[in-house]
Amino acid sequence: MGLIVQKFGGSSVADADKIRNVSRIITETYRRGHSVVAVLSAQGDTTDDLIEKAKEINPNASRREMDMLLSTGEQISCSLCAMAIEAMGYPVISLTGWQAGMRTNSNYSNARISRINTERIQNELDKKSIVIVTGFQGINKYDDITTLGRGGSDTSAVALAAALHADLCQIYTDVDGVYTADPRHVKGARKLEEITFDEMLELATLGAQVLHNRSVEMAKRYNVNLEVISSFSGNPGTKVKEVVKKMEKTHVSGVAKDKDIARLALVGLADQPGIAFKIFSLLAKEKVNVDIILQSIGRGESKDISFTVAKGDKELAKKVLEDNKEYLGFDHIDVNDEIAKVSIVGAGMINNPGVAAKMFEALYNGGINIHMISTSEIKVSVLVDVADADRAVQVIHDKFFSEING
Amino acid sequence: MGLIVQKFGGSSVADADKIRNVSRIITETYRRGHSVVAVLSAQGDTTDDLIEKAKEINPNASRREMDMLLSTGEQISCSLCAMAIEAMGYPVISLTGWQAGMRTNSNYSNARISRINTERIQNELDKKSIVIVTGFQGINKYDDITTLGRGGSDTSAVALAAALHADLCQIYTDVDGVYTADPRHVKGARKLEEITFDEMLELATLGAQVLHNRSVEMAKRYNVNLEVISSFSGNPGTKVKEVVKKMEKTHVSGVAKDKDIARLALVGLADQPGIAFKIFSLLAKEKVNVDIILQSIGRGESKDISFTVAKGDKELAKKVLEDNKEYLGFDHIDVNDEIAKVSIVGAGMINNPGVAAKMFEALYNGGINIHMISTSEIKVSVLVDVADADRAVQVIHDKFFSEING
Repeated sequence: MGLIVQKFGGSSVADADKIRNVSRIITETYRRGHSVVAVLSAQGDTTDDLIEKAKEINPNASRREMDMLLSTGEQISCSLCAMAIEAMGYPVISLTGWQAGMRTNSNYSNARISRINTERIQNELDKKSIVIVTGFQGINKYDDITTLGRGGSDTSAVALAAALHADLCQIYTDVDGVYTADPRHVKGARKLEEITFDEMLELATLGAQVLHNRSVEMAKRYNVNLEVISSFSGNPGTKVKEVVKKMEKTHVSGVAKDKDIARLALVGLADQPGIAFKIFSLLAKEKVNVDIILQSIGRGESKDISFTVAKGDKELAKKVLEDNKEYLGFDHIDVNDEIAKVSIVGAGMINNPGVAAKMFEALYNGGINIHMISTSEIKVSVLVDVADADRAVQVIHDKFFSEING
Repeated sequence: MGLIVQKFGGSSVADADKIRNVSRIITETYRRGHSVVAVLSAQGDTTDDLIEKAKEINPNASRREMDMLLSTGEQISCSLCAMAIEAMGYPVISLTGWQAGMRTNSNYSNARISRINTERIQNELDKKSIVIVTGFQGINKYDDITTLGRGGSDTSAVALAAALHADLCQIYTDVDGVYTADPRHVKGARKLEEITFDEMLELATLGAQVLHNRSVEMAKRYNVNLEVISSFSGNPGTKVKEVVKKMEKTHVSGVAKDKDIARLALVGLADQPGIAFKIFSLLAKEKVNVDIILQSIGRGESKDISFTVAKGDKELAKKVLEDNKEYLGFDHIDVNDEIAKVSIVGAGMINNPGVAAKMFEALYNGGINIHMISTSEIKVSVLVDVADADRAVQVIHDKFFSEING
């Protein structure tokens, strides 16, 4: 008997049958004596369809009006879900972001939650109602509607769980939980029972696409019990916690890949102090997010700096740097977008220096060339040719997990 | 230079091109130096599509959740229209019902506007913004979304015009204005330059379908200058006012028909006091709206009472009365739904007793049989066979307007 926040993504509420399925999960939880707050995304392609409509009218519409438009998607899915639950005979009410007291800053299309006034939700829970809340949206201090950007509904759910002191926040999705690698592409991938916030963060950033990193960061900050679970299978999911009970034998939780990257290299930079600062503040000013940065050791008078960005930022990053060629003083820029990042993540690896070596060995045995290496306390990433990426994940996964599955 | 409220219906904003057309009308008004508040309905079939979605999930959904769902339609059309106006380079903001301060009672799906807090709109107008407001919706004292029912957007527009003390409220529609009869069906029908609120009220109730009577009643109460005008033709529309300058020569403003009616007759009622009260309070309790009522002169011990209701209420009305057959004491109920109501309306007819006679003469010459007659100060209605209805309108219209058009 406790309070459970359940989040359902767009594919889980895509049509009437799926909404009924979600309603069964919610009412089953309620029937077991829990209070339930469900957070829903817009149905399937609704958001994309609305964006299409907007583009036809104004490809450069203000983000304020885009948010006004897009926020209707969740309002539709939530009211429909409430109707489905009504049909099952349970007390229920749907609330928009503003009705649920979800306050954000004014960064339209990518707003941050500033606080949640939970009074209305609490009142409805006290009345024993199931509460359905629109994910992905809130209002700012002007009472204008904002949206939270990518992964926004996960963030809404975790923020609500934190504000309501929920006992559990379940993120329902179309996968069974968090896997050691993408089960659709990697043979032998297996589901993790538990994973730490930090590992999950690295996996989310690395393109594992299960949970958005904003929601994991927030869950970590407020110590929200998270669970990633399937809307369809009925299997137990993966628990995400501060500390997991037993570390995996291998010290590695998962292998992930990210193909949506490009590498830029500034070749022949003068070896002068402050050059890295100059480069990356120029990019930051243009809101280009830089991931891995590698600086070569100076050879004589010049050195190279390489870094990766999302593919979509490639041209912008290149232009910014070339516009400042004299100021920065480099010879030329080398761009490669036929690459992918492959990473292993594990809170256990920090005390096990052999982990990185094991990864490199797997790649060597697979005949896969490594372009760049980057490491953190719980992660090792390598850049490889995009053509090698899937095989790289498989050979690394085999190396770390074959003894368990074998 | 003044404040103009412009309302655009669903067919006027049905697609991107039509939204651009509406945006041109709005910005043209703004460019001439006026402040503009535009009230929009949902695009084309959006509302019907949403109702369809709801029915698939729960045919008996609560009206509270239906309003939550349906209100998204106007939010979509308004944000899209704001984007179109942005693309034209004008300052603009879209507001939902609650953002626009539209407060209603809690009668979901058919709410009444209780007050409008115009502060936000006024602020935006002061900033020289064009303001686009969602029609058809508001919020109640619980901050829950309500919708206003049929003709709701007209009512939103007139209420805003009243609250903002607007100089003019223009109802844009797909017809050019108010005609002496439906121009799609009646030869020689012509547009009226002006019409009184009372005449417009009778025409709206009589099925002329140009303006919803709630909006006309409100315009009359707050003396809002109304104009019915086409979104497409660019022609001047029809002004609706308290008093029109010159009465039409014929004393008749228009001819209307309504086929959506059924007539019930209670035959063989005991001629006792209070019987009419008993009948119509029973019907009122079931929310059956009764239109024309006729009571025959008592013949000996018994009399008949006939009345008309909307076709959709026919079965309910019949059942209510039959369930109370002993209490009311009648012989049998006669139902006829193969009838139509044809009416002439004109503020000038009150002082011209010949008007009704002229109407009956036209019907007699046309060989059309009259089943019932009902008159008010500015209206004469007759019931005829539904098969005769179109011809009845034509012969009456010819009689009153041929000398003008001929």
